[in-house]
Amino acid sequence: MKIHNFSAGPSILPKEVIHQAAEAVKELDNSGLSLIEISHRSSAFISIMDEACALALKLTGLENKGYKSIFVQGGASLQFLMTAYNFLNRKAGYINTGTWSEKAIKEAKLFGEVQELASSKEANYNFIPKGYKIPNDLDYLHLTSNNTIFGTQIKKIPETKVPLVADMSSDIFSRKFDYSKFDCFYAGAQKNMGPAGTTLVIIKEEILNKISNTVPSMLSYKIQAEKDSMFNTPPVFAVYTSMLNMRWVESKGGIEKLGEHNMHKAKLLYGEIDRNSKFVGFTAKEDRSDMNATFNLVNQSDTEAFDGLCNAAGISGLKGHRSVGGYRASMYNALPIESVDVLVECMKSLEKNK
Amino acid sequence: MKIHNFSAGPSILPKEVIHQAAEAVKELDNSGLSLIEISHRSSAFISIMDEACALALKLTGLENKGYKSIFVQGGASLQFLMTAYNFLNRKAGYINTGTWSEKAIKEAKLFGEVQELASSKEANYNFIPKGYKIPNDLDYLHLTSNNTIFGTQIKKIPETKVPLVADMSSDIFSRKFDYSKFDCFYAGAQKNMGPAGTTLVIIKEEILNKISNTVPSMLSYKIQAEKDSMFNTPPVFAVYTSMLNMRWVESKGGIEKLGEHNMHKAKLLYGEIDRNSKFVGFTAKEDRSDMNATFNLVNQSDTEAFDGLCNAAGISGLKGHRSVGGYRASMYNALPIESVDVLVECMKSLEKNK
Repeated sequence: MKIHNFSAGPSILPKEVIHQAAEAVKELDNSGLSLIEISHRSSAFISIMDEACALALKLTGLENKGYKSIFVQGGASLQFLMTAYNFLNRKAGYINTGTWSEKAIKEAKLFGEVQELASSKEANYNFIPKGYKIPNDLDYLHLTSNNTIFGTQIKKIPETKVPLVADMSSDIFSRKFDYSKFDCFYAGAQKNMGPAGTTLVIIKEEILNKISNTVPSMLSYKIQAEKDSMFNTPPVFAVYTSMLNMRWVESKGGIEKLGEHNMHKAKLLYGEIDRNSKFVGFTAKEDRSDMNATFNLVNQSDTEAFDGLCNAAGISGLKGHRSVGGYRASMYNALPIESVDVLVECMKSLEKNK
Repeated sequence: MKIHNFSAGPSILPKEVIHQAAEAVKELDNSGLSLIEISHRSSAFISIMDEACALALKLTGLENKGYKSIFVQGGASLQFLMTAYNFLNRKAGYINTGTWSEKAIKEAKLFGEVQELASSKEANYNFIPKGYKIPNDLDYLHLTSNNTIFGTQIKKIPETKVPLVADMSSDIFSRKFDYSKFDCFYAGAQKNMGPAGTTLVIIKEEILNKISNTVPSMLSYKIQAEKDSMFNTPPVFAVYTSMLNMRWVESKGGIEKLGEHNMHKAKLLYGEIDRNSKFVGFTAKEDRSDMNATFNLVNQSDTEAFDGLCNAAGISGLKGHRSVGGYRASMYNALPIESVDVLVECMKSLEKNK
């Protein structure tokens, strides 16, 4: 049976990327060796890393615009402390839009003063705060562009002169976005970029050169950038597969084209959530994420019937996060519209059958 | 042509492990999904992580002996700062046996007083210092059990009441060793454990419970241990492949059997280095590493001839590190004795032909 993979992450990747990654584990480009048993200092791997770094800038429209891209380990969770360790001297501002923002705030507090400028915590994060004041004396303002757990997404980047830092783990490469407004943004690979195990960081050279904090080598953006992501052995497989996936994004017309496709998928599902009397959406409509749609049954007594329909249709990974309950459909770049169609059909069947 | 892979790391892994890893990237256990697109919270992945953690303790003989094993990201380089961040309150002792020890010392200095108790730096690290005094008031003593670059290995664990911490990146699972003498040891995967991208840390619960330093979540041994290596998304592929490789180690009779095999390979190569008039070893004989043999030509004018013989025989990754020059043959667990035979034949041919 074909599986429709709505997992929130690690999540669906394009079939051809998975196939090529598996082949490279067997043997890399007729070299007689596996991708995972060659030196990271070999010309073969250096060109993989170079291509990955170049593609990340190209896809985000930041090529030749004074930015540096690096691949590190540790996921967004390590970035929560690295951003603060590197950039926080006196005071930073954070917008609290969910669990990941909370975690970023917690880590940053170890390194300096943190101002929570706005929060939707009281509403269980079902909307994106707007209209908050941004002090001019912040070292930076930190945002979470998409909230995987709650299903909200920042649609409009706040206007400010303060450097903008963002966690884009769950929506990087997924929509047309003015990445040049950010001074530093990062993304754990395991949603729209590749397999778990590497993290992309893109940083403006201007802010990179200004870092004056004393930071341990592995946590230093300066050192990681100077060493071209090779301060120590990089996570070879995760970088290679991310590179393959970025090639795929480019081949599909880049983030603008994929963004249209993603919007189309989201419209289809949210349309059904709003139309169908059996379902209710979790978040404010204007803040709905194109990546993660959170919704619930109006009557919990329909749970068994709906889960049965989904299982029979091959739908996987639809369970909502425990902080929200209900359902979450993650519709990352690689999810085909056919999978959304199948989910919508299950929702329609539930309404019809009862 | 068959390649004989003497790379220092990332390095050779057993053919069957590479094959199984590639298959799992295609599809994990008939699940209809790739290993890299399933949730790390799925029962399938949790049992992979549990098995990896259990195997690490079993292979090192530390099962049910009050130790905890965790898999983290960042390589040994992140452990250089994590060990100090977690354990260093007042003063730590370090034995400087090479580049990796130096790097560990550099990072530790950010967190407290560091005493370099012994060093072989003046001799370009061609031996392991012995007979040094270990003060009783150290928070811990840090060792590098095997020096990949210089080709030396600690054969006798120093006697002390001070907690012992060790970087075992390049010789874990490679020899019979009393791991219970250590309070904490760690190893980047990419030599004897698996592909680059994960790091094993084994830590005594007694010392774990005593940690009082305030440490950021991702760098906290306590948190990583409490969360069973799942504080955030783990590097799924690297953990899975390491687990496969640990299964392979077990199937080969465990580290005792592999240790005998490794000693046999090392004896063969060092025997030829000592016998052959064209070659000279780099390190003190008693400190020679069974994992990485460093040697050089007596006459540099033979370089082209020897490199030609090696290339023709399919030998790969034999170039010495720039800090030592000459050659380095890394003979990790998965390197078959046939590859050492081929190298020895090349050395003999050089002597015969000239």
